[in-house]
Amino acid sequence: MKRTLTHLADGRELFYFDRHDDADRGAADERELSPRPAPSELRYDPLTEEWIAIAGHRQTRTFLPPADQCPLCPSAPGRLSEIPASSYDVVVFENRFPSFSTPAGDLGGPGGPGGHAAEGAIGATRPGRGRCEVVCFTSDHDSSFSALSPEQVELVMEAWIDRTAELAAIPGVEQVFCFENRGAEIGITLAHPHGQIYAYPYVTPRTKLTLRAADRHRERTGGNLFADILAAEREAGVRVVAANEHWTAFVPAAARWPFEVHVYPHRQVPDLGGLEQAERAAFGPLYTDVLRRLDGLFGVPMPYVAAWHQAPVTTGRDLSYAHLELFSIRRAADKLKYLAGSESAMGAFVNDVLPEEAARLLRNAVTD
Amino acid sequence: MKRTLTHLADGRELFYFDRHDDADRGAADERELSPRPAPSELRYDPLTEEWIAIAGHRQTRTFLPPADQCPLCPSAPGRLSEIPASSYDVVVFENRFPSFSTPAGDLGGPGGPGGHAAEGAIGATRPGRGRCEVVCFTSDHDSSFSALSPEQVELVMEAWIDRTAELAAIPGVEQVFCFENRGAEIGITLAHPHGQIYAYPYVTPRTKLTLRAADRHRERTGGNLFADILAAEREAGVRVVAANEHWTAFVPAAARWPFEVHVYPHRQVPDLGGLEQAERAAFGPLYTDVLRRLDGLFGVPMPYVAAWHQAPVTTGRDLSYAHLELFSIRRAADKLKYLAGSESAMGAFVNDVLPEEAARLLRNAVTD
Repeated sequence: MKRTLTHLADGRELFYFDRHDDADRGAADERELSPRPAPSELRYDPLTEEWIAIAGHRQTRTFLPPADQCPLCPSAPGRLSEIPASSYDVVVFENRFPSFSTPAGDLGGPGGPGGHAAEGAIGATRPGRGRCEVVCFTSDHDSSFSALSPEQVELVMEAWIDRTAELAAIPGVEQVFCFENRGAEIGITLAHPHGQIYAYPYVTPRTKLTLRAADRHRERTGGNLFADILAAEREAGVRVVAANEHWTAFVPAAARWPFEVHVYPHRQVPDLGGLEQAERAAFGPLYTDVLRRLDGLFGVPMPYVAAWHQAPVTTGRDLSYAHLELFSIRRAADKLKYLAGSESAMGAFVNDVLPEEAARLLRNAVTD
Repeated sequence: MKRTLTHLADGRELFYFDRHDDADRGAADERELSPRPAPSELRYDPLTEEWIAIAGHRQTRTFLPPADQCPLCPSAPGRLSEIPASSYDVVVFENRFPSFSTPAGDLGGPGGPGGHAAEGAIGATRPGRGRCEVVCFTSDHDSSFSALSPEQVELVMEAWIDRTAELAAIPGVEQVFCFENRGAEIGITLAHPHGQIYAYPYVTPRTKLTLRAADRHRERTGGNLFADILAAEREAGVRVVAANEHWTAFVPAAARWPFEVHVYPHRQVPDLGGLEQAERAAFGPLYTDVLRRLDGLFGVPMPYVAAWHQAPVTTGRDLSYAHLELFSIRRAADKLKYLAGSESAMGAFVNDVLPEEAARLLRNAVTD
């Protein structure tokens, strides 16, 4: 594997991850690009004690362009994209419309220049530091993650591992989140197979909640919450969708979403970088099988969110257990699950699909 | 105002709320209805320490029927709906496909028969007790809340107050939530203007979070969090959308949604039942004005969730401050805000619309 760093016309970083060492990555970005937008602002929500990123510049971001103007395809004569090269294996670059960004020379710190970050103060704000990156899983516009070869998934995982380590080293970054949004129904703005990486300047609300639960579980039982969940699911079996030597995919007993699958490695590691080579290699075949089962459920490409849960940068690393949580909002061939009043306003989830039934349907799904 | 209780063919309760005392509410439900579904099951999510309701029977619920088969219109000869009468002002009845329900004779209690409710135990379950009701705001299928007269809104509020008090008295109910989901984009399954009431057998995650924040705020400052937020917004003024003698509507400084408006009474009361007559009467004119501004933004009916935050039944009543939180997922005439990876998986919100700009647009919106 070879990693090559280059810069786009507006100064953003772009990384090629190549299977072969002889790839020529000298192509320059010949576009004229407008200057990069100002960073977003974080505002403290006193009702929830959470930070909300206000990123007004994102309103004008590229929205479902025609395929022949896809900014994630390789560049071609007369058609310049975000990727200067005429071909690539896997590419990662800084998002042109980032929710979080760190101006060059910014040393970070919890409050930092220009912000007053008093937790708990009504009206508190601070700069939306951090970084957002785009990961192109393949140069094939019409492919999908489910169709990637095991070798290609390994290359994507190397990119995730590389970026997680580098982004975690940015001053002020507290959590790195690799994810994929797939499908127009889930709100994707570009159809090309790609994911994103968010480097947050805080520990996200969900991760805080889960680490608190894991901490209490350890106090009460002495065990690791995630390991104990995995063991319980493997023993129960009824919600297991697929498994191999190093990974198990199961529908959680208290699933929130109509089709939800959690994919755990069999060994506790805080983040993807902790996985050994055999574990990394075993992920792709299992995960793409699960994705094909998902697509096979209703015979249509399923909209989904695939979310890697990794340890925060400085807290809870001993409690954390890297795993992927995959869920779809499709509950039937012609129906979506919406987050309406109960979920969106009160955080109270109602799931219309029995998790054991979801697992059975996924086990029986056609995967051709 | 006159309230009349009757029962539907499958035993569900239905309440007519009439402006005039002479309404004849003797009509019987002449339909043949299948028996009511079994209660849902609550499952404990050990990763978040929250309860998830699993309600498999809801998969078959009525889904966007044609207008001439609307179950929320009054009954007519040859076309029997959920409402036996041939006309009504406001009607409330038990949801035929409830997320929570309490079988007759069930005395509730935290665990109750058939469940093992040990908080913190992997695999814990308990029955999904509680109750779900539907509120028909008007018999006019083609109307909307924004078009209701002030008198009609007062009648709806009397219904909310009545139902909140009665549902809170059901054994095991911990919180009563009155809300409206509006618009196909938000996932409504019936177009007739209506809202819902959920009586939960637990305090919802969002309310728990907010009461914890309010408790800390009181410890730190001695003040009431909600009252202090309202005072700060009224003083800043820049995010105020509309106000009258008893109510103020403002976009919160840390809004999560592209268009979000919070509507506070000027006096702290734990729930709607605490409002005096003048305060109840003043709500409708202000709120329907805000709704019309929302519809005026892009010249199309806006999808929204309108959520009444009231005090839980047994906890935090002195900290609570009844208020309404209204938000839309529409961020532009042709674009929706989706809860994708960052929001759905990590609870980390990014808002693309500056709250001060949202408030300005709403203040300037055409409301004819």
